[in-house]
Amino acid sequence: MQIIGELINGMYKKVGNAIKDADPKPIKALALAQIEAGANCLDVNCGPAAKDQVEAFKWLIKTIREVTPVKLVIDTTNLEATETALKCAPQSIINSTTADPQKMEAVFGLALKYNSEVIALTMNKKGIPRNKEERLELAAGIVTYCSQIDFDLNKLYLDPVILPVNVAQLQAMEVVEAVRDFKILSTPPPKTVVGLSNISQRTHQRSLINRIYLVMLIEAGLDAAILDPLDKNLMQAMIATELLMNKHIYCDSFLEAYKNR
Amino acid sequence: MQIIGELINGMYKKVGNAIKDADPKPIKALALAQIEAGANCLDVNCGPAAKDQVEAFKWLIKTIREVTPVKLVIDTTNLEATETALKCAPQSIINSTTADPQKMEAVFGLALKYNSEVIALTMNKKGIPRNKEERLELAAGIVTYCSQIDFDLNKLYLDPVILPVNVAQLQAMEVVEAVRDFKILSTPPPKTVVGLSNISQRTHQRSLINRIYLVMLIEAGLDAAILDPLDKNLMQAMIATELLMNKHIYCDSFLEAYKNR
Repeated sequence: MQIIGELINGMYKKVGNAIKDADPKPIKALALAQIEAGANCLDVNCGPAAKDQVEAFKWLIKTIREVTPVKLVIDTTNLEATETALKCAPQSIINSTTADPQKMEAVFGLALKYNSEVIALTMNKKGIPRNKEERLELAAGIVTYCSQIDFDLNKLYLDPVILPVNVAQLQAMEVVEAVRDFKILSTPPPKTVVGLSNISQRTHQRSLINRIYLVMLIEAGLDAAILDPLDKNLMQAMIATELLMNKHIYCDSFLEAYKNR
Repeated sequence: MQIIGELINGMYKKVGNAIKDADPKPIKALALAQIEAGANCLDVNCGPAAKDQVEAFKWLIKTIREVTPVKLVIDTTNLEATETALKCAPQSIINSTTADPQKMEAVFGLALKYNSEVIALTMNKKGIPRNKEERLELAAGIVTYCSQIDFDLNKLYLDPVILPVNVAQLQAMEVVEAVRDFKILSTPPPKTVVGLSNISQRTHQRSLINRIYLVMLIEAGLDAAILDPLDKNLMQAMIATELLMNKHIYCDSFLEAYKNR
């Protein structure tokens, strides 16, 4: 399973300040710590602190590249910043497009130009779907668009859009079922990704809720998750889930074996 | 979800000694501690220590009944001991019958006589099924038998038989899928139960494996589990799973709210 570390995000004070002060140390440390903990991709989001997103992305990517060649996830709604980031790091994952035609045209256009992958949210201008069926309908539209423009489905990640359990409790299982059902949309099946920590926004017991929900999503077939890899309990839950699903062979030290895989 | 406490089992030294010495204190303490932790049924198994199973069950049930009226699960393959236990505590759950006709005749006969419920293992003299399909076939035979003798399907718990992940890793998901599919066998659907800790027998990280597997099973529709309710992490995983499945309404203190429900 693909673990996308979420911690390089300007929303966090430490990261926001590092961007403002152009201090590379905290960024490099966070990149390395997340990889050490099991991340195989890093989400990069300069957040609200950055006055100039284009410059912020340039600096962030240059800084990260000084310590690791790991795949990056370019997390911004700003298309100019996205393109700048892709110039610095092609073959990244663009996070994200919606299912709106105009947005898809722009984002998939960039993806084709830079040989990048794309996270596509199953939502549009009308808002976030209310159930599994609406998510499937939007997902089908995205997959159809990809076929029309000959975009490699192996480079597409569908994101069913998680809502916090404390405000939209009924949606939690709709998303799990959407992950299960997205697989029938194409051959090869589209990959699926979630922004995990949305489920626990403003709840108590955030770590518990995150890890239990991750188990359900992996069991339903999830391929990738944007999450906090420094949460040890979360990573152990992920490893144990994959063990029970026979994705790693059991050995008594399976937790350590995963890290050394 | 029905939580069946597993700790009153003669296999455990403390319980075995209490039975041998006819010392009621440890038994009463274990009964109350499990209920306090969230168990709403108690499994009773006198284990290998008891020379006379009939007398052991009589004494165990009398001892437990001095502190709680909670539902009991009579866990023995000895039919005479089962009947004695049912005389002391009718409306218990018999644990268990196999899918073998002769065994079903005897066990369901006792269940009808004492108005008891039954746990039926989807296995027979040939052994434990190798996959979901064989489990479904045996389950269908059990459900058919119940219909033939007019046994109330609401009183039937199908147990798909968990094997340890370190010896039969491929079986783990077969059992999860069996729990999901058993539901289609009848209207009302048969209930499902597992002996959870089998999954982690002789593994390392027993608690982690138990709780991650429980999340998957509950998501698949599990109704009851025989488990250690004193494992706090396990109980919290169970509560969070049910929360995400919208079985309890979210509140910030959902863990405490569950205990006071």
